Amino acid sequence: MSALIPAPLPSWTGGAAKQRILAVVDAMTDPTSPSFVEERRRIATFDNDGTLWCEKPAYVQFMLLLNRWQQMAAEDPSRRETQPYKAAVEGDRAWFADVYAHVADLLQGAGDAYAGLTPDEFDAAVADFFDRANHPRFGVPLHHLTYTPMVELVHLLRGRGFKVLITTGGGRDFVRVVSEEIYGLPREAIIGSSPTLEYRDGTLYRTAQLSGGIDDGPGKPVHIYERTGYVPAFAAGNADGDIQMLESARFGLLVHHDDDVREYAYDTGSENALSQAGRDDWLVVSMKDDFAQVFPPDT
Amino acid sequence: MSALIPAPLPSWTGGAAKQRILAVVDAMTDPTSPSFVEERRRIATFDNDGTLWCEKPAYVQFMLLLNRWQQMAAEDPSRRETQPYKAAVEGDRAWFADVYAHVADLLQGAGDAYAGLTPDEFDAAVADFFDRANHPRFGVPLHHLTYTPMVELVHLLRGRGFKVLITTGGGRDFVRVVSEEIYGLPREAIIGSSPTLEYRDGTLYRTAQLSGGIDDGPGKPVHIYERTGYVPAFAAGNADGDIQMLESARFGLLVHHDDDVREYAYDTGSENALSQAGRDDWLVVSMKDDFAQVFPPDT
Repeated sequence: MSALIPAPLPSWTGGAAKQRILAVVDAMTDPTSPSFVEERRRIATFDNDGTLWCEKPAYVQFMLLLNRWQQMAAEDPSRRETQPYKAAVEGDRAWFADVYAHVADLLQGAGDAYAGLTPDEFDAAVADFFDRANHPRFGVPLHHLTYTPMVELVHLLRGRGFKVLITTGGGRDFVRVVSEEIYGLPREAIIGSSPTLEYRDGTLYRTAQLSGGIDDGPGKPVHIYERTGYVPAFAAGNADGDIQMLESARFGLLVHHDDDVREYAYDTGSENALSQAGRDDWLVVSMKDDFAQVFPPDT
Repeated sequence: MSALIPAPLPSWTGGAAKQRILAVVDAMTDPTSPSFVEERRRIATFDNDGTLWCEKPAYVQFMLLLNRWQQMAAEDPSRRETQPYKAAVEGDRAWFADVYAHVADLLQGAGDAYAGLTPDEFDAAVADFFDRANHPRFGVPLHHLTYTPMVELVHLLRGRGFKVLITTGGGRDFVRVVSEEIYGLPREAIIGSSPTLEYRDGTLYRTAQLSGGIDDGPGKPVHIYERTGYVPAFAAGNADGDIQMLESARFGLLVHHDDDVREYAYDTGSENALSQAGRDDWLVVSMKDDFAQVFPPDT
């Protein structure tokens, strides 16, 4: 390689993970390789929370909703007596932590939070949140905590003819507001959970109802096929909700959160994925050992 | 213009329709024009049946289903006593013509026709149909009856930085089988009606249930936004089911079927669109006057 061409994946250490990724991409794009993937089938899909950006101490979108519920309770104090507004106002972490007991209230609250808004109004509300919200530990805007090595991988794949899509279990329209700025990916590259939209008198409106199922677990390969007409060639995730997407791909990559100095160390919610990784030969990426750098230099 | 550069839209006559299309595309792509559309928002959406390919004497996909129902009745003769299999076997046109009275049976039959198949199995069945089915009047393969002027328009728009998508009221996966061959559009460019897919043990399966609503009427702008994150800049349709998509676009084009010599002449199902065209300043394209050629030369 010429010294004038920058080396690929500069924010990865030179270990086995980086070498395997480069070998896989080379094989998939080499017409003489048995692993060659024709360009139309080069679909690469990335989970978002915990795979492309930091999901601790809470999902970024949860922080948005918390903020919104507090705002709604301030506008209409009668809401303080009902959940999830009550817990949001009181900062009741225990209530939110018990997700399974409160899933109906949480989904109802998430649906109601932006129901009736047009897409442009929703975009403006989300942009305003990102302008103001800082990470409690790192003190930088929440959406600046992207994983530089993973964003480099997105660009490497795009440069090699892959169509890169994000499949977020969270809100599709939420991620679309910042996807171009932080990943260089157009709005259409984002697949995710979303409300049903309604068309009335020339305008679209968000409703409180979920459309087409949560983009998590089996919903991911379903939505990827709906969107592209193919199963992914390359898929990256970090949690149990990514298992089916990784299974459906030719090559699977699992980000392992094992760096409590530079980020967080946790396996909760990823136990099954980590145990399936060995059986299915997914590449487990250690944030501690394989990432030379975690976040962008200016954060 | 240099004589070496081929003139755009060669299969259109030189009339007002072609001139208006070229002026609109020029304005949308000229940064100094007040009508300029930045590239990320250059979404162009085309209906399929009657806008890009011939929909008479019946929708192409209806001919596929008729064929499939006859085949299912032959495999299981008990089906001959139930609809829509009975009407398919008996060639009962009157039964099929009364769509509103029989919509439940028709939707059930359409759902059941390919339920349980994997996407690859469905693709193979559709490809086999296209290999064998000829148009009753023109005697050529059904999918060869694309409108050459409209396909030229698709390519013109793509060359000017538009993302072109097809929004078919019929089956998304059905059109995807031939979209690359006949339009040069990848599978992902097709939006349409589709069954819910199920992911089981590493494989996707088609079910008999519709997913996300029919891609017709208000479903079109909804699905276009879901897919792209934008409303269309340019939209082309031919029937009442395209009204909401045309309303939502900056520029709307309506194909008028007024050529019973080279194709068909009919307004049924397009009456409302035709009457709204004047109010909303949609360009009504006369197949008779504005198309120098209708079908590809080899058909």
